[in-house]
Amino acid sequence: MINIENQKLIEKYLTFWEKLEATQKNLLLNNSAEKVFHKDDSIYSADEECLGVLLIKTGMLRVFILSEDGREVTLYRLYPGDTCVLSASCILNSINFEVHIAAELDTEAILINIAAFGKVANENVYAENFSLRNAMERFSEVMFAIEEILFSSIEKRLANYLLDQSDRAGGDKIKVTHEQIAKDIGSAREVVSRMLKVFQEEGLIEQGRGKIVIINEKGLEKFL
Amino acid sequence: MINIENQKLIEKYLTFWEKLEATQKNLLLNNSAEKVFHKDDSIYSADEECLGVLLIKTGMLRVFILSEDGREVTLYRLYPGDTCVLSASCILNSINFEVHIAAELDTEAILINIAAFGKVANENVYAENFSLRNAMERFSEVMFAIEEILFSSIEKRLANYLLDQSDRAGGDKIKVTHEQIAKDIGSAREVVSRMLKVFQEEGLIEQGRGKIVIINEKGLEKFL
Repeated sequence: MINIENQKLIEKYLTFWEKLEATQKNLLLNNSAEKVFHKDDSIYSADEECLGVLLIKTGMLRVFILSEDGREVTLYRLYPGDTCVLSASCILNSINFEVHIAAELDTEAILINIAAFGKVANENVYAENFSLRNAMERFSEVMFAIEEILFSSIEKRLANYLLDQSDRAGGDKIKVTHEQIAKDIGSAREVVSRMLKVFQEEGLIEQGRGKIVIINEKGLEKFL
Repeated sequence: MINIENQKLIEKYLTFWEKLEATQKNLLLNNSAEKVFHKDDSIYSADEECLGVLLIKTGMLRVFILSEDGREVTLYRLYPGDTCVLSASCILNSINFEVHIAAELDTEAILINIAAFGKVANENVYAENFSLRNAMERFSEVMFAIEEILFSSIEKRLANYLLDQSDRAGGDKIKVTHEQIAKDIGSAREVVSRMLKVFQEEGLIEQGRGKIVIINEKGLEKFL
């Protein structure tokens, strides 16, 4: 059984809560647990057993796809307050593809057991509706990421990424490797390194070990 | 009002039919119409008004995304028996991206008016779930297409495409332009033309005006 604080979060995150029978509520509460993931932990992959539904309390998870030769493309990220049903896609008949999930920061989450959630989603059309809507919202994010990857030029994608990350960090300094940028914008590390060198030569950024400093924001914005 | 044959099709395609009130059934039937699209007609685009829900009777539609500079990437096709709710995405709050739809063959469809379908989906959770599940199934197809585009080599994608199309056509001859192949496999026309020339030089295919003939199927299969 989960503590009162987590119980309140479950009731808040699962917006179909009021539509459940008492036995269904108990089933979900009795099959929920707090989980802590560490930065860079792999949380879920296509080869593993179905995980369950995740409610993110703190930290950040990254959802990505992986090619046969190990190339990663980031689809979206999960932040505190987000719910993830794609980690339970094995119980959702309409979802036939597999994503990978890894922790980008130390992350606390509530994990609802797959069998319990599956039973409730099967019995209760509102729980099923919640799952489908949650997955659809991700579909929209994925389409956005895909359009960026397919249609934006590498300069534009990279400039957009740098400006976005510095906004998030609340400063001009971004701690990130070329490898990570490549994964995030769906490109190759060599291409990212080459383009960053161009940006550096044009006086738009400076590079250090594992960090990038934006020194001409207006210059980067011209690429958007 | 729609004829009896089409009414039966609506009842069959809309799997939530039995969960509707009589007034909801009448609303849908009174707001459905048979539509004929001609080959190459643009049926739906992001700029146009929301279309409605399509039930495909005969023919074939192609669903794609379009970049600012006019490049198309095919996401999936709709065949007889398929239902399309993405053409009604304006009423589905969870869907926030836009697709384009064009007729690839002369196509007969039943079109359910957007306002009527939206009202029923709003009132009836089973109708909403049908829409979400229908869209989710497309999500899986889109992910498959995207993984192909991002991860497969151009040779593999092209060989796979040619074998797939000849299977569909039931023979070795495929009627298609380089332009169309490029759209379908998410590449550029120049790249497709170059690679087809390589296939031709290797004795795998022969090319004519608007057609490609496979002359060594086993050779193409080696690329898969």
